[in-house]
Amino acid sequence: MSTTFFDRHRATLDKAVQAIGERGYWSPYSESPSPRVYGETAADDGKAAYDARLNRPFEIGQAGTIGRTGNEVSPYGPALGITYPKADIDQLLQGSAAAGVAWRKAGPEVWAGVALEIVARLNARSFEIAHAVMHTTGQAYMMAFQAGGPHAQDRAVEAIAYAWQETSRIPANAFWEKPQGKHDPLKMRKHFRIVPRGIGLVIGCCTFPTWNSYPGLFADLATGNTVIVKPHPGAILPLAITVEIARAVIAEAGFNPDVVTLVAHEAGDKVATELALRPEIKLIDFTGSSANGNWLERNALQAQVFTEKSGVNQIVIDSTADFKGMARNIAFSLVLYSGQMCTTPQNIYIPKDGIATAEGHVSFDAVVAAIADAINKLTGDPVKAVELLGAIQNTAVLDRIDAARKIGEVVLDSTSLQHPQFPDARIRTPLLVKVADGKAVTEEFFGPVSFAVATDSTAVSIKLAEKTVREHGALTLSAYTTDAAVKEALGDAAAEAGVALSLNLTGGVFVNQSAAFSDFHGTGANPAANAALADTAFVASRFRVVQIREPV
Amino acid sequence: MSTTFFDRHRATLDKAVQAIGERGYWSPYSESPSPRVYGETAADDGKAAYDARLNRPFEIGQAGTIGRTGNEVSPYGPALGITYPKADIDQLLQGSAAAGVAWRKAGPEVWAGVALEIVARLNARSFEIAHAVMHTTGQAYMMAFQAGGPHAQDRAVEAIAYAWQETSRIPANAFWEKPQGKHDPLKMRKHFRIVPRGIGLVIGCCTFPTWNSYPGLFADLATGNTVIVKPHPGAILPLAITVEIARAVIAEAGFNPDVVTLVAHEAGDKVATELALRPEIKLIDFTGSSANGNWLERNALQAQVFTEKSGVNQIVIDSTADFKGMARNIAFSLVLYSGQMCTTPQNIYIPKDGIATAEGHVSFDAVVAAIADAINKLTGDPVKAVELLGAIQNTAVLDRIDAARKIGEVVLDSTSLQHPQFPDARIRTPLLVKVADGKAVTEEFFGPVSFAVATDSTAVSIKLAEKTVREHGALTLSAYTTDAAVKEALGDAAAEAGVALSLNLTGGVFVNQSAAFSDFHGTGANPAANAALADTAFVASRFRVVQIREPV
Repeated sequence: MSTTFFDRHRATLDKAVQAIGERGYWSPYSESPSPRVYGETAADDGKAAYDARLNRPFEIGQAGTIGRTGNEVSPYGPALGITYPKADIDQLLQGSAAAGVAWRKAGPEVWAGVALEIVARLNARSFEIAHAVMHTTGQAYMMAFQAGGPHAQDRAVEAIAYAWQETSRIPANAFWEKPQGKHDPLKMRKHFRIVPRGIGLVIGCCTFPTWNSYPGLFADLATGNTVIVKPHPGAILPLAITVEIARAVIAEAGFNPDVVTLVAHEAGDKVATELALRPEIKLIDFTGSSANGNWLERNALQAQVFTEKSGVNQIVIDSTADFKGMARNIAFSLVLYSGQMCTTPQNIYIPKDGIATAEGHVSFDAVVAAIADAINKLTGDPVKAVELLGAIQNTAVLDRIDAARKIGEVVLDSTSLQHPQFPDARIRTPLLVKVADGKAVTEEFFGPVSFAVATDSTAVSIKLAEKTVREHGALTLSAYTTDAAVKEALGDAAAEAGVALSLNLTGGVFVNQSAAFSDFHGTGANPAANAALADTAFVASRFRVVQIREPV
Repeated sequence: MSTTFFDRHRATLDKAVQAIGERGYWSPYSESPSPRVYGETAADDGKAAYDARLNRPFEIGQAGTIGRTGNEVSPYGPALGITYPKADIDQLLQGSAAAGVAWRKAGPEVWAGVALEIVARLNARSFEIAHAVMHTTGQAYMMAFQAGGPHAQDRAVEAIAYAWQETSRIPANAFWEKPQGKHDPLKMRKHFRIVPRGIGLVIGCCTFPTWNSYPGLFADLATGNTVIVKPHPGAILPLAITVEIARAVIAEAGFNPDVVTLVAHEAGDKVATELALRPEIKLIDFTGSSANGNWLERNALQAQVFTEKSGVNQIVIDSTADFKGMARNIAFSLVLYSGQMCTTPQNIYIPKDGIATAEGHVSFDAVVAAIADAINKLTGDPVKAVELLGAIQNTAVLDRIDAARKIGEVVLDSTSLQHPQFPDARIRTPLLVKVADGKAVTEEFFGPVSFAVATDSTAVSIKLAEKTVREHGALTLSAYTTDAAVKEALGDAAAEAGVALSLNLTGGVFVNQSAAFSDFHGTGANPAANAALADTAFVASRFRVVQIREPV
């Protein structure tokens, strides 16, 4: 059965390995929710499946359940009314370890095959997961489908491909023959066994529960570890569905489904820190705040810890050949999911004396006004706007909007919009604040908040951006320039500070977006993340090699 | 010039990459000190070069020198009389960072080429280094030549091959074209730059200063980092010569030689801990005690820390088809370098009721006696014996011999031998102690000390070995059995505990030995080491990738 899964997905795996080597465009799963791709009834079936989840217990059937927990409320208004099994940590860890006994011996082909089959079944459930993502994160439906479904699945396949690339390059057997001059050579047979670390803990976030969790989850599975998935209390359902699907595949493959388990818990309790410090936990993948991520890096020393934390993303505007395209592209980046992406720009540096464009010189204020206008165009019609903005995930975001207003002069205020379908949805348009004193805002204002900072020159902008990345971290840096020397300086600053750079985005690609198999998400070289999604370093230490040698 | 180095060594690099994939026997450098290999005058030249080092200052010419330090005394008697530059840590770190500015931009081909040229020149200096290793570590001359020279160089090339494999698989450029249905595709050019971590610190040990330091040193260099080499105060010279050669090559390649620097210091001062905690240090490679290694893992959290620490190596004797070969092989393992190898067995588990052999049943006492006899044969003639035993590196080893005598019944006592050439040499034969109560000795007795432990059965021996590896760590596990089921159980125990297993070594391969390109030294899966020499995980996190993307 397990071998069948591997055989079934072998072609996909080979293509994925090729894709991560070449880093051009490739995707195994269509991002189009079209009935031609997913089937005529897929959308309706997914909606119905989601609706059937509401207002009832979500059963997992895993080891160590002691009561129930769960209190998710949609950013669009309704409470989900779902409860999940509450785990006894001791029993759950024992269950995970017990399930690991057979799983860890299964070997790379079985691990990769099972992992890929799970992803394939997740793909078939993309519509159901889309609604689950939408009503926990506040993402608009299309983004919830794409980022929560096929794009997250892409990142899963990417992690599996990296894992397979590493595990499969260790030969199972080798023959060693060392010449001894006139004497007979020394001859040995060697056998190499891939040994997983043990139990992995995957800690999800409340904005991209699947996209950010799948790389760690599938890297762990594909290297033979068992996995405990701990979702954010505000976004449990997408990962609970994921765990359910994973367990079904694992059981079909003949293993104890406790290879993958769920730890749902209440906001504010100690479950995450207690779990993270347990000696049984050997791998931790975390997405969330810098405070929590740094704590894990400094305290969960028994584990390999992979973190994506917070940062201050930035745009440097020097000059452009397409002023309107630039304004529109930046505006779209700020509007998308109300700036609640870890890749959304926050600080926009513009020389106080203005910039050169194809249409001539444009003043600082005119640049800022053009971005504000472009935002207004995208948010003017509430019916269309909500499909880009989505809803605000939690009220802390609203508090940050209030705080940001005091940082400088409000150029474009954040306003509430009425959602045509969900009267209680928390919808806010982006806030754009002008900072005249040329200082970077080094605190992260996660949400629909950005700052247009007037600097003395582009050279100062670049220095400011580099320093901010070094000291506060960033997942993205974007820049607009027509000057080759400025491009060179930006490239060097990005390399020195360790942040990915996007240049002159004026069309249909946005700095927020990061394409699996091509873009490395995060670098691991600045304080915003200690790892990249995904690269060899992301998988290589999730297993070890134990050898047996014997003379022939 | 740098490209020339890469071109010069390209064939070697390709073969090395092939070798780490296949893991059969391969070595770029001959382990034979024959004049036919190294030249008629090589041995004499090397001795003369070593003699010329003695009783004078060793000049490095690196940044930040404030006075001199160094107090090495040969385990064979004579003081070396060499002083080394003493480093001002602040200035040295500034110098290393300054040298890194150009070095980090040079790219994988230059890094690999320069690293391989350094190794080639180290190989040509193997005789000089052999004397330096012999008179700091106490190794006998042949071992000092092989382990200190070609075998250490093999491990260097292996690390460079792993680094090159990882850096070269990241394409410098990629073209990304995403279909957009009826619309024009999105097109982007992407550029990927390998960005090193920064400054690496390599902390050497006093028994294998080159063999254990080269992997980290060359993995750092081949991924674009600068390196500060901090030898053990008792074994500075081999690494000082290494640094001298590295600096010459780096300067020839057109870079600031402070890419590689030396920190010599006094025993007992705070230099190592001070350096290890500096924020500039991003990578640490350590070989030494568990106490120091664990401290680094728990405190130097700003760095990636790779450690090889102490452990308790073990032999499980169940049965054998070659009783004499077994006894001789074990005896040789214990005699070699007076047990001062991190791979030397310490605990030998034998069923109290004896074992099955081709010649019939052999009692516990007879097995122990056979090993003791074989040791006596190897150490009976002092002139021959010292060429295997070498000398005792430091007096702490002598204290451990005294302490070990109290653990059980002394079957074979450790005695002093007179070295025919060095009257003051510290020479000791192995101590073999019988432990009748079936308890593993879980403290490491580094040196010529081993314990024959009487167990209830082989099953108990295996459990004891597995538990000891899990709790106290080990670099090697050796076993003798003719029983397929026992082999299977041993393989599973080794995999579960995470230790390399050698089976039925009765001939010319010894458990102490670990062949580059074929054997993984350490697993990183038990407390004796958090890394293996070498694998992908050993190099993959020494650099990061920064990308630049721009629409076409």
